[in-house]
Amino acid sequence: MTNRILVLPGDGIGPEITAEAVKVLDACYEEGFDMELVFGKVGGDAIDATGVPLPDETLKAAHDADAILLGAVGGPKWEALEPREHRPEKGLLGIRKGLELYANLRPAILYPQLAEASTLRPEVVSGLDIMIVRELTGDIYFGEPRGFGEKEDGTRYGYNTYISDEKEIRRIGRTAFDLARKRNRKVCSVDKANVLEASMLWREIMNDIAKDYPDVELSHMYIDNASMQLVRAPKQFDVIVTGNMFGDILSDEASMLTGSIGMLPSASLNASGQGMFEPSHGSAPDIAGQNIANPLATILSAAMMLRYSLEAPELADRIERAVGDVLDQGLRTADIMQEGARRVTTSEMGDAVVEAF
Amino acid sequence: MTNRILVLPGDGIGPEITAEAVKVLDACYEEGFDMELVFGKVGGDAIDATGVPLPDETLKAAHDADAILLGAVGGPKWEALEPREHRPEKGLLGIRKGLELYANLRPAILYPQLAEASTLRPEVVSGLDIMIVRELTGDIYFGEPRGFGEKEDGTRYGYNTYISDEKEIRRIGRTAFDLARKRNRKVCSVDKANVLEASMLWREIMNDIAKDYPDVELSHMYIDNASMQLVRAPKQFDVIVTGNMFGDILSDEASMLTGSIGMLPSASLNASGQGMFEPSHGSAPDIAGQNIANPLATILSAAMMLRYSLEAPELADRIERAVGDVLDQGLRTADIMQEGARRVTTSEMGDAVVEAF
Ligand SMILES: CC(C)[C@H](C(=O)O)[C@@H](O)C(=O)O
Ligand SMILES: CC(C)[C@H](C(=O)O)[C@@H](O)C(=O)O
Repeated sequence: MTNRILVLPGDGIGPEITAEAVKVLDACYEEGFDMELVFGKVGGDAIDATGVPLPDETLKAAHDADAILLGAVGGPKWEALEPREHRPEKGLLGIRKGLELYANLRPAILYPQLAEASTLRPEVVSGLDIMIVRELTGDIYFGEPRGFGEKEDGTRYGYNTYISDEKEIRRIGRTAFDLARKRNRKVCSVDKANVLEASMLWREIMNDIAKDYPDVELSHMYIDNASMQLVRAPKQFDVIVTGNMFGDILSDEASMLTGSIGMLPSASLNASGQGMFEPSHGSAPDIAGQNIANPLATILSAAMMLRYSLEAPELADRIERAVGDVLDQGLRTADIMQEGARRVTTSEMGDAVVEAF
Repeated sequence: MTNRILVLPGDGIGPEITAEAVKVLDACYEEGFDMELVFGKVGGDAIDATGVPLPDETLKAAHDADAILLGAVGGPKWEALEPREHRPEKGLLGIRKGLELYANLRPAILYPQLAEASTLRPEVVSGLDIMIVRELTGDIYFGEPRGFGEKEDGTRYGYNTYISDEKEIRRIGRTAFDLARKRNRKVCSVDKANVLEASMLWREIMNDIAKDYPDVELSHMYIDNASMQLVRAPKQFDVIVTGNMFGDILSDEASMLTGSIGMLPSASLNASGQGMFEPSHGSAPDIAGQNIANPLATILSAAMMLRYSLEAPELADRIERAVGDVLDQGLRTADIMQEGARRVTTSEMGDAVVEAF
């Protein structure tokens, strides 16, 4: 069966880095992996072409695809756009919600070859391997009602609703526990149950799910403490599961512990295994078009795609091994450059991975 | 005029550490600082005595005081208490809201003597001096409606409201800009304006306030990026201003960058300069009653109290200098112990500060 992959290069460095991931997918194709690539527009790229960040055509192509490979969206060019519904981020949020991609997996892995890149002391982060599981289609991101209002005395206010329901919590909880079973069997659930009702329900349901996974250890942490513990002793974590908003914050903090966010992929999955895969970093408009961005996070996102959506785990393994090999060879893009290493361009890095594949 | 100080020792190590801060206040008294100390109960301590975490008597004493010195609240003993309104945290939140202590100041300072304690590389954190200004009486902490509900199909949900109004944003913004003027004239405002309406208003008002402070540089950062930047390059920040929820997370993360949260005080102020002062760390029930906790954060909180609420900045300076002196002498409680230093108890540390005062 042909695997249909929708490629959405997006903005900034998006086109350059997805081009390298496509090279690697092409290498898979040449070895017999049956795929068809479709290209589409999202974010600022789509705004420029059609006036909206998520054209119907793109959403339809996304629905029809088995998996989506996304570069990055956004940039200063579109930041002040009105109405706000037309900003690039809405393209991203629209696909997440439209395809009900509720499970966001964001590994924070420190590659031993890049230990120097971390701002943390080597002994604190060496061997770091955390999987953050973030709920992606609920929470305060999509909660209604939301908007602006005016009090009787004319004071303006803005408001949002943080809402989470049993089913939503249960399905993301199961994702986390299932993943933990393939790892070190530890789940840390992060919430703010000492203050928020939405979190109190979250914690109750997590405790309930844990009963079905007697072989997995569940702990709870308040979000403020979790943001501290990631700095103090990050290796205490295996799988972290949390809501959309807390996950946004913690996953970025955790990636930065590695010092090389240019290396970190992400997956966003729905219940039928369909997924969107994208680097954890942003669109980096300041270096766009210069052929210096690091394509490895996008290439590793393609590997996650093969593993989680396209049932080709051996190819995923091979890509990940190839990435390790090019690091061993001392090849580095500017963002991860070190003394004694060889600096390469975006496309040279992509070529090197294909070579090592 | 006699300064009325309400001391609320609270739970866990609270009584031990406030006792040391009281020693230092007594030293001020002996040098002519006119004060009257009143003691009260809050948190678990109050629950055990009266059944509720914030007895009317305590709230009244708080209203009557010029300033409040708090130890810490909470502990496993009271964590599962029902109804939730009767848990220790409600005591803390009740005083904050009751006295409208909207401005929470949390410095994250790395003492040069303790640079080794940080998990970050010395060059990344040496000289760190950030002031986090957190809005403390609004946001999702107090937003209504909140609670639990059930959908038509029986699915339970929990919900909270994140709401912020113009006036609330404006007053905390002014606090931050005023503080920046006494520091390095840089304010970084943290929000999630690419997703949340409440944040969009926040950003708009911050831009508006900035017009009155042409000598202060304002920048904006999304919360996810801020949590990353604190790890990547924390010294880029001077004053950070943010809402209640984001401030809870960021201030804990920032304190941990120093590696010695046992050193960090905090102030929570209202519009008339009345304030509550407490260490940034928690009640540490695991080491309570052993005379080993670090009292310096509480002693430095007393210094903040003298500076911000009791108009005695010279005494505040002297206390802070005395703390620096005891560190120079090599005295360390267990949490900040280093090779070659002399380990002291909670009370020995307090005595040493009084000695150096
Ligand atoms: C761009 C933004 C809307 C998005 C989010 O907050 O989810 C991003 O930060 C992310 O984590 O993918
Ligand atoms: C105990 C808790 C309610 C409190 C908060 O979230 O504000 C604490 O974390 C703090 O930061 O003072």
